[in-house]
Amino acid sequence: MTDRLLLGSGPSPVPRQVLGALAQPTLGHLDPVFGEVMDSCAALLRRVFGTQNPVTLPLSATGSGGMQTMVDALVRPGDVVVVGVNGLFGERMADALGRVGAEVVRVEGEWGRALPGDRVAEALPDELAAAFLVHAETSTGALNDPGGLGAAVRERGGLMLLDCVTSLGGVPVRVDDWQVDAAFSGSQKCLNCPPGLAPFTAGERALERRTGRSWYFDLDAYVDFWRPGGGGARVYHHTAPTNMIVALREALELVLDEADAEREARHRRAHLALAAALDVLGWRRLVPEAEAAWPLLSVLVPDDVDEAVLRRALLLEDSIEVSGGLGPLAGRVWRIGVMGAGARPEPQERFITVLTRHVGGDERAALDALHAGWGGA
Amino acid sequence: MTDRLLLGSGPSPVPRQVLGALAQPTLGHLDPVFGEVMDSCAALLRRVFGTQNPVTLPLSATGSGGMQTMVDALVRPGDVVVVGVNGLFGERMADALGRVGAEVVRVEGEWGRALPGDRVAEALPDELAAAFLVHAETSTGALNDPGGLGAAVRERGGLMLLDCVTSLGGVPVRVDDWQVDAAFSGSQKCLNCPPGLAPFTAGERALERRTGRSWYFDLDAYVDFWRPGGGGARVYHHTAPTNMIVALREALELVLDEADAEREARHRRAHLALAAALDVLGWRRLVPEAEAAWPLLSVLVPDDVDEAVLRRALLLEDSIEVSGGLGPLAGRVWRIGVMGAGARPEPQERFITVLTRHVGGDERAALDALHAGWGGA
Repeated sequence: MTDRLLLGSGPSPVPRQVLGALAQPTLGHLDPVFGEVMDSCAALLRRVFGTQNPVTLPLSATGSGGMQTMVDALVRPGDVVVVGVNGLFGERMADALGRVGAEVVRVEGEWGRALPGDRVAEALPDELAAAFLVHAETSTGALNDPGGLGAAVRERGGLMLLDCVTSLGGVPVRVDDWQVDAAFSGSQKCLNCPPGLAPFTAGERALERRTGRSWYFDLDAYVDFWRPGGGGARVYHHTAPTNMIVALREALELVLDEADAEREARHRRAHLALAAALDVLGWRRLVPEAEAAWPLLSVLVPDDVDEAVLRRALLLEDSIEVSGGLGPLAGRVWRIGVMGAGARPEPQERFITVLTRHVGGDERAALDALHAGWGGA
Repeated sequence: MTDRLLLGSGPSPVPRQVLGALAQPTLGHLDPVFGEVMDSCAALLRRVFGTQNPVTLPLSATGSGGMQTMVDALVRPGDVVVVGVNGLFGERMADALGRVGAEVVRVEGEWGRALPGDRVAEALPDELAAAFLVHAETSTGALNDPGGLGAAVRERGGLMLLDCVTSLGGVPVRVDDWQVDAAFSGSQKCLNCPPGLAPFTAGERALERRTGRSWYFDLDAYVDFWRPGGGGARVYHHTAPTNMIVALREALELVLDEADAEREARHRRAHLALAAALDVLGWRRLVPEAEAAWPLLSVLVPDDVDEAVLRRALLLEDSIEVSGGLGPLAGRVWRIGVMGAGARPEPQERFITVLTRHVGGDERAALDALHAGWGGA
């Protein structure tokens, strides 16, 4: 049995209770007991997404399947879609949209810096079908504040689409306040559930534009099965991944046991404490603090460190997983998860201790910085 | 904790070992330990699919996501695709193909009877992009023997596509012998794994036609991550559902612990024994025995039984799940799973005993017929 400390870009540490829920005897997808799980899972997702959208549910695919659902269910060939690109996940959406024949208008940002929604708003054409922003860029750890982008997109008659994969549960997500028409996430980041589900929400404006092009990612069929308004029998679409949904419900309950403000403060504290500890060891943050997403800390690997060798040693010798860089940042940064159960002093202490054992540096001073960041002595 | 005896059309009974594997601590999708799980999972899938195809792996979606992958990855708008339709899952494929602009040529069969591949072959046009057959129609329990359809399709330059959702692991599947170019299944039928993964295989002829239209269901990206030829680093595509894949590997090992011939014989025996027991009680089989898929027994509900009320009572009072009819068979049949761990005397005895308690009839005679079917006294 391999028991990793998952401090990479996700999956994140999965609490014992969530694994226990995952391993409950399998329920049928039309069992009324499972129906209750679905209803409560959907209600909890609405809370964490900050939305009243009835259509809020986990899609039967990983987080990227949530992105594909936006593309397949809400975008038509020829549609003008503006995409903010300051990392791999903006690139990915541009790629996915291009594949179905959308006319992609890229708004570029630097990898490792924030691309605020207001900057994307300035670049909007007069007419567009949709705009897409990645809230927390998992490839860099930059937070792209939606700002007034939702309002600006609606003014032009388009849909505001948001990737909340790494943000959901770790920084506030306010789908309704931000006038977001559809958003998706992944189960394996700040929700601390294993990977395999894509939390998804869509408002009325989005649903009016649904295409029905994909049978599997058809929103009408999801609605008929999930019955978000209650009432009427659930209509079979596909066999829902029942064990995963039971686990997600448990994970969401754990997440929401903590008040929103406390949870955000904890992620912020965990991020800053870890950054301070690593700074003592000479690992500088990539993203300026004011532009950072708390759930993911990217740090520049010191020049004298072979990051791939070290990362593998941490994994295989110490059972600690961290993530390397992607794209232009490959070989140059580490991405360290600060997600949910991973955003606590104990796993961070273990990481700092193990890291100093490998690369040297003042372990005591680094741990002191960590503890100071957590508000300790 | 709700512990159902799952004797419906799936999910099927999940062995304790599989639930245990599911709840192992989560692994990262790029962890070498998980990489070993992937390699062995793929190797086991090749055995159960009866194929040497390197590209044989579980897609990160439920069984129907496997169907969608065929549509998105292998079919282009305007393509002529012949679809055998003798139940809901043939209908579903025709629907999914129509949504992407394929020209669907339907070959109709009766719901509850087999539609052999040879009959579909007779209706093939001179030129076609693909033909699709459902091996075991989960909506009726009819087995559609591919026969010479694969060869006939290849002669015309098309791809032979096969739905193996309910057949895989319960009746022999011979992808290579049957000249099948791509096939998919679901984890939750005869493999006895929870729902959430779509075992999939594609041969060289299929891969040559891949479209790349869907980012999520892109076969190139799956190949780069799964590295079916071995060698080279796995390239990140999406975060694979690691716990589910660990569970599927365990489930496949259990399936393949039993020799193919024995497993098929057991499913056949279980199917015939249950049919005999139900016949004693006046529940007649829908599909003629010679046309039946062993993993699913559809029986006609006697006229004096309110099937929905009875089905609900079995579920809520006795914790036994069976499935009702679909489409034109709704309210008229029950579909009873005979899948893997469910294809054993004990669960069938429990079902017969509970059923007679509700509807009367000669329990002793029914159980005698069941045991005789299993070769007992």
